Amino acid sequence: MPTLDFWLDYASTYSYLAAARIGPLARAAAVTVRWRPFLLGPIFQAQGWNSSPFNIYAAKGRYMWRDMERSCEHLGLPLTRPARFPQNSILAARVALIGFDDGWGEDFSHAVYRAEFAESRDIGETATIAKILGKLGRDASHVLEQAQAAENKARLRSQTEEAQRLGIFGAPSFTTADDELFWGNDRLEAALAWARK
Amino acid sequence: MPTLDFWLDYASTYSYLAAARIGPLARAAAVTVRWRPFLLGPIFQAQGWNSSPFNIYAAKGRYMWRDMERSCEHLGLPLTRPARFPQNSILAARVALIGFDDGWGEDFSHAVYRAEFAESRDIGETATIAKILGKLGRDASHVLEQAQAAENKARLRSQTEEAQRLGIFGAPSFTTADDELFWGNDRLEAALAWARK
Repeated sequence: MPTLDFWLDYASTYSYLAAARIGPLARAAAVTVRWRPFLLGPIFQAQGWNSSPFNIYAAKGRYMWRDMERSCEHLGLPLTRPARFPQNSILAARVALIGFDDGWGEDFSHAVYRAEFAESRDIGETATIAKILGKLGRDASHVLEQAQAAENKARLRSQTEEAQRLGIFGAPSFTTADDELFWGNDRLEAALAWARK
Repeated sequence: MPTLDFWLDYASTYSYLAAARIGPLARAAAVTVRWRPFLLGPIFQAQGWNSSPFNIYAAKGRYMWRDMERSCEHLGLPLTRPARFPQNSILAARVALIGFDDGWGEDFSHAVYRAEFAESRDIGETATIAKILGKLGRDASHVLEQAQAAENKARLRSQTEEAQRLGIFGAPSFTTADDELFWGNDRLEAALAWARK
């Protein structure tokens, strides 16, 4: 089966949409998806941004939230605009790396996005992540220890560096085995079609 | 018939794609399209940008040109990356306002995009615009005089101000009768569906 890399940041609104859509679409297209959590923060900082462009550029931000409302309604996804945006997604990304090793990464990802964008919880807080892990039947303190180990932190850094090398500048992004890059939830279908070529 | 406003800048790569797609899609959806040329320049300047974000942010620019290649191939549209980007689109936009009054605005728009993105011509040069007008059977010097009249210049300024009031921050954009804004060639289908609601 062809493979598509799905680059997601847990702080990214449109990654929430892509995470909800990619499973069924990839199955229908017979494409295997590799979930690649990474951090947009260092990439934005390298562009001179110290926050999300949706905060820096007011019109773009207003548009994004309205577009998220429409898109979530269209997809049947819950949405409650979080009090804080963007949230700190480092811990979620570190835990996700463990989760994708252990087979619960996708469930964890959906739960994180739901906590953040539907349930008014702050995914930057350890308690939020611990609660999600508990609900998934994981030993939260053990997983958090693995997630915060130096080796796992380094893994997330190198995954983020790989994203930068691939030319990624936003999330969600998709890359194919032949290094084609597609940016944005709207391009998911095009990325899947390219992966099948 | 429901109406959709199509906001385009003649310097914008993705506006080229949307201009090529909107006619057949709108006819199939039974939606009337109102072409609204405007200038991104003042809007970008208000955001602190003195060039296209595709020039300011290198990774985003590299992505855009590759994505244009793929998209043009997919749509069967010619593409030759212009030596200069972005081009000065003021004259084209002023002439287009006359053209949409007189019924040749769409043909003019397609010819401008083709000159710029397929034929390595500079649409900022009066000679390029005059040649296009000639090919469309117009009296180029008369049209250029109308286009550069103070009243017509003011019209373009107020159209750009209207775009800003509507929250537009990029091109192409689409607005509906109930002031819903959709940004990007990828959202054209969603905009048409909303207009039909």
